[in-house]
Amino acid sequence: MLKLYYSPGACAVASHIGLEEAGADYEIEKIDLRAGQQRTPEYLAINPAGVTPALKTSEGVITQNAAILAYVAQTHPQAGLADLDDPFAFARLQAVNGWLASSLHPAIGKALFSKPPLEGEAKEEAVKVALEKYDLAENHLLTGPWVLGEDYSMADGYLMVFTRWARQAGLLDKTRFPKLNDHLDRVQTRPAVQRVLEAEGIQAV
Amino acid sequence: MLKLYYSPGACAVASHIGLEEAGADYEIEKIDLRAGQQRTPEYLAINPAGVTPALKTSEGVITQNAAILAYVAQTHPQAGLADLDDPFAFARLQAVNGWLASSLHPAIGKALFSKPPLEGEAKEEAVKVALEKYDLAENHLLTGPWVLGEDYSMADGYLMVFTRWARQAGLLDKTRFPKLNDHLDRVQTRPAVQRVLEAEGIQAV
Repeated sequence: MLKLYYSPGACAVASHIGLEEAGADYEIEKIDLRAGQQRTPEYLAINPAGVTPALKTSEGVITQNAAILAYVAQTHPQAGLADLDDPFAFARLQAVNGWLASSLHPAIGKALFSKPPLEGEAKEEAVKVALEKYDLAENHLLTGPWVLGEDYSMADGYLMVFTRWARQAGLLDKTRFPKLNDHLDRVQTRPAVQRVLEAEGIQAV
Repeated sequence: MLKLYYSPGACAVASHIGLEEAGADYEIEKIDLRAGQQRTPEYLAINPAGVTPALKTSEGVITQNAAILAYVAQTHPQAGLADLDDPFAFARLQAVNGWLASSLHPAIGKALFSKPPLEGEAKEEAVKVALEKYDLAENHLLTGPWVLGEDYSMADGYLMVFTRWARQAGLLDKTRFPKLNDHLDRVQTRPAVQRVLEAEGIQAV
């Protein structure tokens, strides 16, 4: 059986939603990032990078949300969570998920979760940079109603991780980001997403 | 015909190598990052994120090296640059390329290319953090002789971008990083890679 290593509310929520939406047979194991559990020898043997998510499969461990989401989509084609037969459509999905991982995540992560926390001008600048990324998502990345258009895909649960963080921090202004707010609301009403939030012990926002 | 937008020696080298190794029919257009050409209205119409690479196809534009490399591999299966029929093997490739994009690239980018440039303790700390990522690549990510093992893949030209930058900056110590040094040397001897370096007007290092 697949096993997902996750930390509640952290970016592994994306992979967790992907597994649940796909109807995968999987279990989850919590890694407490605040307690530093990602740096234990046991977890480093699973993912030497010391981060979540990691997905243990019968063939080995897969890391990185974009890779896990593609793998789950490919191994559960009946769920229709990625366009697997069209390289351009698949590349669009991978491009969105790659941008979320390499651009939006670091930017909002720096603004909200730097250790030690940013303060004053440094915090303001980091928030400004992050919000410009959300502008890009609002105005270009999110086709609507779902990220790639008419069909819910493996990109929607991933974008939701970051709009959720932004709303929790009071940064997801409804005037500036109407489409992102609407999208977040819609993702959170999905039964699979509600099951994931409950399993992780976190709330819709 | 495919068209790759690139900046010489920047991370788009990965996609450029992927196209050349695949034997793709493509052309290239230079975007001068130092001159700010990535922020012109013309380029923002191609990639609203204002970064390279971007690959123009007959169906639309693909961004993000990991997405472009997967697309080129899928549309040029005869080149054997990705294991397309095995979701786990494909996920390993995507995980490596995702880690390069979201973890190694930001870390070495901060150390070497921050604007304004980092100095003193901030620079030392950024270099230290980046080199710990290279340790991870040396000890876990690079299977050898190629990234994924016996066969050259779409991960090798991407890793080479960052080992090349590190060697140029005097950071790729041969004692600490013997496998990465060996890998960089081997990638640079490939005819396709030599053609890419020549086309971009840059040198092997």
